[in-house]
Amino acid sequence: MASTSSSASVTVDGKLSEEFAVPSHVEEMRCLMAEFAEKNAAAGRKVVLITSGGTKVPLESRTVRFLDNFSSGRRGASSAEYFLDSDYAVIFLHRHRSLYPYTRLYSGVNFLDSLKCETEEEGSCQVLVDQKALPNIVTVLRKYQAVKAAGLLLPIEFNTLSEYLHLLKAAAQALNSTGSKAMFYLAAAVSDFYIPASEMPEHKIQSSNGPLQISMKMVPKMLSPLVKDWAPKAFVISFKLETDPSILLERARQALATYKHQAVVANVLDTRRGYVVVVTKDSQHELVLSEDEVKKEVEIEEKIVSNLSAAHSHFMAQQG
Amino acid sequence: MASTSSSASVTVDGKLSEEFAVPSHVEEMRCLMAEFAEKNAAAGRKVVLITSGGTKVPLESRTVRFLDNFSSGRRGASSAEYFLDSDYAVIFLHRHRSLYPYTRLYSGVNFLDSLKCETEEEGSCQVLVDQKALPNIVTVLRKYQAVKAAGLLLPIEFNTLSEYLHLLKAAAQALNSTGSKAMFYLAAAVSDFYIPASEMPEHKIQSSNGPLQISMKMVPKMLSPLVKDWAPKAFVISFKLETDPSILLERARQALATYKHQAVVANVLDTRRGYVVVVTKDSQHELVLSEDEVKKEVEIEEKIVSNLSAAHSHFMAQQG
Repeated sequence: MASTSSSASVTVDGKLSEEFAVPSHVEEMRCLMAEFAEKNAAAGRKVVLITSGGTKVPLESRTVRFLDNFSSGRRGASSAEYFLDSDYAVIFLHRHRSLYPYTRLYSGVNFLDSLKCETEEEGSCQVLVDQKALPNIVTVLRKYQAVKAAGLLLPIEFNTLSEYLHLLKAAAQALNSTGSKAMFYLAAAVSDFYIPASEMPEHKIQSSNGPLQISMKMVPKMLSPLVKDWAPKAFVISFKLETDPSILLERARQALATYKHQAVVANVLDTRRGYVVVVTKDSQHELVLSEDEVKKEVEIEEKIVSNLSAAHSHFMAQQG
Repeated sequence: MASTSSSASVTVDGKLSEEFAVPSHVEEMRCLMAEFAEKNAAAGRKVVLITSGGTKVPLESRTVRFLDNFSSGRRGASSAEYFLDSDYAVIFLHRHRSLYPYTRLYSGVNFLDSLKCETEEEGSCQVLVDQKALPNIVTVLRKYQAVKAAGLLLPIEFNTLSEYLHLLKAAAQALNSTGSKAMFYLAAAVSDFYIPASEMPEHKIQSSNGPLQISMKMVPKMLSPLVKDWAPKAFVISFKLETDPSILLERARQALATYKHQAVVANVLDTRRGYVVVVTKDSQHELVLSEDEVKKEVEIEEKIVSNLSAAHSHFMAQQG
């Protein structure tokens, strides 16, 4: 067992350091995450690492063009809120400018449209929020401020695939000592393909050279060393998004068989906001929003988090 | 002349309708833009169409992956403000969620961090802005509200390259009757490459198929029919961004010779916030921010807009 284990991590570690530039702040972030996890675990809290948003894959080293994955970050951001409601401490590893917990509720509003000046006596101005423009703002603001004051949410940003991969490894190492109290909720839309630094042109590709041919290599699968080596006691959830429903469950089962983690949340692009399947080694739970729930603006993430936090408690009890 | 002219537009028009899906709202947007331009031109105002942000180029028809161009939309959004200060009416054709005039000044702030509740007598709550968290908010808000109330800013959004191309054509047609009072300020980072709908896989590309080969075709050059056919009397500015300074001016001159428009704003990725060259058929103006100006947070867009609006007035006078 030890040999398979270490070979998986040696392969991925080798690729990580050779082909993906190490972000300069990765050590600092690892310390921040470890401190956050230890403090919260000591206070009796479970800790979840949520990854969210798409990764940017540069086509040039001085990057003008890049490959990206469709993801607004909505699922990760809303899930973070439900995990906080369920007494988790949350590390939110997200793409820069993707949706953010609480703030995401107003992402469709230009916030300047919600403000008004009120002149005070000496000619100075108070700026007030028009609460009709930001529904429930008082409740949301109080929740946001309480989470912040209690230090229950640690935001960490990435832009590129390289940053994501190194920060995920750092997070896994930081959470290792949290044992089975740690959950990984890997909702980010991570590229499967990249161009190694050695094969990347330095400068902007010129359109005058004619049509473009791009050859991309496979991104190393992080789940393998994460589950085997970096955080072997943690409760690990991956996501599987497909556009073709007919291959979805087969792909989810393949992922579980390959990586031997605890669950896959399987979903189809067109229906992802109202239907997912939580697949484990020996179960399959369909989570669906009823028409009535859709009307009441219930979010599917509430059900996903409820299902997984119960499974996580069960897992912790089993691990003793 | 007429034959070259119509052949340019026939080629691009043919490709546009065959290979780039027409967005369903393009007619509605054309009407909105034409109405906006006519109203403002009748009031004696110049009208500028600003394009801003990068274009999304799908790799699958049910899109999970796409190619994108680096662009926050900062240049377009700040230029819009300076054009409004210079009495232009502005059509702001921008990538969904890219930076927006005025709001962009606070893009680094999570707006929930700037709000506080103040309990009123009956237990209800006023939500106030902490003005230290949003510097100059009173001035900025007043400007934003004045522009909105006067109907001087028309925002139009795009996401994909197809949407951009069709909306740009519609804008050009909508502005044709504005004659030389119309300026096109084409600051968007538009992809040079795309995959035709007919060659695009329907479903998400499977990573289990191994490394990825992508073949992309050249995007038709819109500047050619725009200048020759769609809005032949307008004052047209394109942007040229390179990473290699040694080829920049040559590329800018090539573009002017090919499309015969009025100016190219040439800039290099690393220095684009402090240095640009405005290249015309017979002149070359370097615009630079001094160290002192950088300290005072002067923006290079103020200089670009000042240079171009003077050139536009001169151009209008020449056209009679």
